[in-house]
Amino acid sequence: MTIKFDITPLTHALDRELQNKIDNKTKPLGALGQLECLALQLGRIQNSLTPNINKPTMIVFAADHGVVAQGVSAFPQAVTQQMLTNFIAGGAAVSVFCRQHRVPLRIVDVGVKGNIAESTLLYSNRKIAEGTNDFSVTAAMNESEYQQAIQAGIAEVDLAKQSGSNFVMFGEMGIGNTTTAACLMACLTGLAPQNCVGPGTGLTSEGVVHKAQVIEATQQRIQKQHNVLSLDNLPAALLAQECGGFEIIAMAGAMLRAAEQKMAFVVDGFICSVAFLLAVKLHEEVKPFAVFAHKSQETAHKTLLDYLAVKPLLTLDLRLGEGSGAILALPIIQSAALFMNEMASFDSAAVSNAI
Amino acid sequence: MTIKFDITPLTHALDRELQNKIDNKTKPLGALGQLECLALQLGRIQNSLTPNINKPTMIVFAADHGVVAQGVSAFPQAVTQQMLTNFIAGGAAVSVFCRQHRVPLRIVDVGVKGNIAESTLLYSNRKIAEGTNDFSVTAAMNESEYQQAIQAGIAEVDLAKQSGSNFVMFGEMGIGNTTTAACLMACLTGLAPQNCVGPGTGLTSEGVVHKAQVIEATQQRIQKQHNVLSLDNLPAALLAQECGGFEIIAMAGAMLRAAEQKMAFVVDGFICSVAFLLAVKLHEEVKPFAVFAHKSQETAHKTLLDYLAVKPLLTLDLRLGEGSGAILALPIIQSAALFMNEMASFDSAAVSNAI
Repeated sequence: MTIKFDITPLTHALDRELQNKIDNKTKPLGALGQLECLALQLGRIQNSLTPNINKPTMIVFAADHGVVAQGVSAFPQAVTQQMLTNFIAGGAAVSVFCRQHRVPLRIVDVGVKGNIAESTLLYSNRKIAEGTNDFSVTAAMNESEYQQAIQAGIAEVDLAKQSGSNFVMFGEMGIGNTTTAACLMACLTGLAPQNCVGPGTGLTSEGVVHKAQVIEATQQRIQKQHNVLSLDNLPAALLAQECGGFEIIAMAGAMLRAAEQKMAFVVDGFICSVAFLLAVKLHEEVKPFAVFAHKSQETAHKTLLDYLAVKPLLTLDLRLGEGSGAILALPIIQSAALFMNEMASFDSAAVSNAI
Repeated sequence: MTIKFDITPLTHALDRELQNKIDNKTKPLGALGQLECLALQLGRIQNSLTPNINKPTMIVFAADHGVVAQGVSAFPQAVTQQMLTNFIAGGAAVSVFCRQHRVPLRIVDVGVKGNIAESTLLYSNRKIAEGTNDFSVTAAMNESEYQQAIQAGIAEVDLAKQSGSNFVMFGEMGIGNTTTAACLMACLTGLAPQNCVGPGTGLTSEGVVHKAQVIEATQQRIQKQHNVLSLDNLPAALLAQECGGFEIIAMAGAMLRAAEQKMAFVVDGFICSVAFLLAVKLHEEVKPFAVFAHKSQETAHKTLLDYLAVKPLLTLDLRLGEGSGAILALPIIQSAALFMNEMASFDSAAVSNAI
């Protein structure tokens, strides 16, 4: 069984009217730069000359990663569970920034090791397993688990939509997940593992080299397992089962569902961008629904953004994950919708246009 | 008479404690990137481990420029006055973004040509003259007018402070003021005029060349007038009278007063950065009080930011002025203060630190 998404390709039918509206606002032509591109994109997605952002919602997917057994993270695995408690208590960066912008935060446990006290609506228990298998040794998950992860993403976007949201932001938490993301990126793009790795939460340069070696070994294992000479011949869904993470696959499912529901969504940093890469490989019509929040300090993120040919809004040397970059970018995205709706035009304000 | 500022140089006395607090937040070391630098800077300025941003206030200084007689702008001069009416009516970009962030907006007329209906507290009439003289022909203003412009900046910062604000943002409006800013930049830095000019509100490449020629002619006039072989020998205040603008000088005065009052302030785009350059040349202790909002698409802005050796927060290809970049950056600056005050520490959240 494969989960099918029915994403209507975006049309450019309103482009001329949207651009006209943008160009007639009281400002020099193009002077709002990337905000103008955003306004056009939101207008296209919502098929409206008055695009708006209603109840923006942050969904953070969390899971653990068996590959931490290979010593690929600067932090112990227990931190995933500890940070979930911190999210729920409101003490993490994304908690603080969501509160700042009055954005509901939803923490979705798709595979964290250990139990979380479920005392709050903020926490959504969709645990598939207590972390993935160590993918350097065996497949990270089976097909059923992969489908459950996709379904978790779908279900959370549907809940956001039912609550009145037309705009979702995604984040993640999972000790070891820069290694998972790097491995999946290498497998899905064909780029060399050393171009997909970085220090994550703070590895030494030796640690980064080791991470690339773990990925190379994993790729050889996958090739052997499926008796292929190149990973290019394997479908994206299978590669995700081989070396993905539950939170990454759930984010990909959530992005595909958002696009299906004609909702714009925000891609956060490196790991979230790998989820987007997976979503694009599964269904390329998802692409124009994405807004890229920032370029992370994690080295491979720039490589991936270039591969995807997308331009993020912020470059603040962040490398925290959690959706922290997405929520920091939110007010700018809201500004793009607001200028479309609230700025005067040259005519309405009786301001002379360029000579 | 010279207006003296008594700016207490910032100390690094709290740096170690501030850095400790930042490093013990529940995140990998340095993972909040530029937000961590901002938190340190705000802590230094406010001499506090709990820096905060109270009643952030946007002050937009507006004036006209005699040099428009040389055909240096894509828009007619009447647009300065028309845009003031638009600001007051709430239809300009900065009006929309200030409303979005519940930030009081103050429009200070230090030399707009024509009368503005003064029906609102938002409008502050501190008109010095109906625009500057055409500085390609004669000095832009006399010394008394220069002093009045500095005083206008001081008075507005004092009003903001009295209203409870500890954080001010500056913007400007004035048809022709990229030429004024470019000329003042060339005179204050010694950089060639062609490195200080750009298309402003939308000049053609021929227009940009013409702009540089007007600046070269102005520099020759100033040298001749003061009988010097190089502008390096002339004080910054004199150069500002020769080829400055009322709004640029008022912003410099406002920045110096903010620093004197130990208030952090935000520098917007190209023109605002030239005001900051003037402030630094008048009193270099002002420098660490400034937060740079963005790198504009106006070519010379990058040159100026490099000259000042500062790193802005945003690069969104903006080139609108009005303080629009400053207000777009505000939520990120607020996030920097909030994470210092509201994020849990590894200890308080019982999260394990790096191994």
